[in-house]
Amino acid sequence: MVKSSTQEFGWTEVPRNRSNVPSEKEAKTSNVEVDFGTIWPKTSVVESATKYVKENLPKETFSHSLRVYCFGHTIVTQHFPSWIESNKASFFETWALTCLFHDIATTPTNRNNTHLSFEFQGGFIALQQLQSYGAPVAQAESVCEAIIRHQDPGETGTVSRMGQLVQISTEFDNMGYQPHLIHKDVISQVAKQHPRLNWSSCFSGTIKEEIAAKPWCHTTSLEGFAEAVEGNKLMHPYD
Amino acid sequence: MVKSSTQEFGWTEVPRNRSNVPSEKEAKTSNVEVDFGTIWPKTSVVESATKYVKENLPKETFSHSLRVYCFGHTIVTQHFPSWIESNKASFFETWALTCLFHDIATTPTNRNNTHLSFEFQGGFIALQQLQSYGAPVAQAESVCEAIIRHQDPGETGTVSRMGQLVQISTEFDNMGYQPHLIHKDVISQVAKQHPRLNWSSCFSGTIKEEIAAKPWCHTTSLEGFAEAVEGNKLMHPYD
Repeated sequence: MVKSSTQEFGWTEVPRNRSNVPSEKEAKTSNVEVDFGTIWPKTSVVESATKYVKENLPKETFSHSLRVYCFGHTIVTQHFPSWIESNKASFFETWALTCLFHDIATTPTNRNNTHLSFEFQGGFIALQQLQSYGAPVAQAESVCEAIIRHQDPGETGTVSRMGQLVQISTEFDNMGYQPHLIHKDVISQVAKQHPRLNWSSCFSGTIKEEIAAKPWCHTTSLEGFAEAVEGNKLMHPYD
Repeated sequence: MVKSSTQEFGWTEVPRNRSNVPSEKEAKTSNVEVDFGTIWPKTSVVESATKYVKENLPKETFSHSLRVYCFGHTIVTQHFPSWIESNKASFFETWALTCLFHDIATTPTNRNNTHLSFEFQGGFIALQQLQSYGAPVAQAESVCEAIIRHQDPGETGTVSRMGQLVQISTEFDNMGYQPHLIHKDVISQVAKQHPRLNWSSCFSGTIKEEIAAKPWCHTTSLEGFAEAVEGNKLMHPYD
């Protein structure tokens, strides 16, 4: 294992049970200006990935992916600054790529051309596309691993930082989980820049379609998922 | 989704919590003759896969893979005959391929050339290799999905039949779990044809190496795994 790539691409392990995540009491959540144009990485890999993903995702899913980026960027900055003490640019580039690709296999086209659970198909698509854009293998793999495990919360073992971040950030946007991690005015700013476009009903529909098409799929492990997405009270004002 | 391929390649969903698996009371476990040469599929895809895997796996892991095949073949024949009511040959061919590739990424070479959890790397290797041998996509994907989820037991949702079978059969050989599913004389026959070669200490060592090299890996989600493998009482007489 080449150790330098562990930190910069977000491989470092964290507890899957989130004991490292500050509680409501401990969290130093604050209102800050979040300007997407400022925080979005401007590298050639991200540019190529954005072009590919934008061409393939419905606008609702693309907008969701960019909200997830903003929420995750804020969460790391405010709650996990040690993650970006060094290699900040590489970490956030990897984070951007993870956000872009994490739902790539939820499109009707990608769902219908595979039997694989969408997390696994998405991980493989990301792994191959990113290397074709010149991303280092360790970075492409970090994105792949995070996507494969992004619907794998649990009480045991560990997960990579990138994996934990995509779990927390997608759960935040999809279900309003762990709401204490982001200031409500930040939610408002992010939703203004990347509108929800009825994401709650849109994504709960997507979940049901995945399960209907692939009754064996990994999404079935999340009990009550579609309902929790549909009933997202935190984000309701922005839907 | 092409429905015919669902049954023949083992995609049909089953409960992940194994409520479909007969209990000790219900199980019709019997002693039968298990001759590997008779039950092993003789197709060109299996031949190509066997050649590749045999060249890449240590003899202990290869022997384990063939024991897993025998145990799973017996389990389906005795406890899940509906799974092979039709398409028996395709099901067992897919099963053979799953067994061959499920631990492919546990070799020192494959462990050291990736950051990915071995289940994901193994699934990916299988997906690509099998298609290169001419396996249909739906079959290669069934093997891939099963390998990715082969260390993903749990109480919620569903998993494919192929995924459940590889979970049950590997747990049986690795930890002696659900011992009522196989007659002890069948264990003896299988261990004679494909010796354990100290598999208990061998594989517990492999688990520790995976976790040491990749502290974020999915294997960490199985608490006490290495210890359970090392303390496999059922198989101790054959080690």
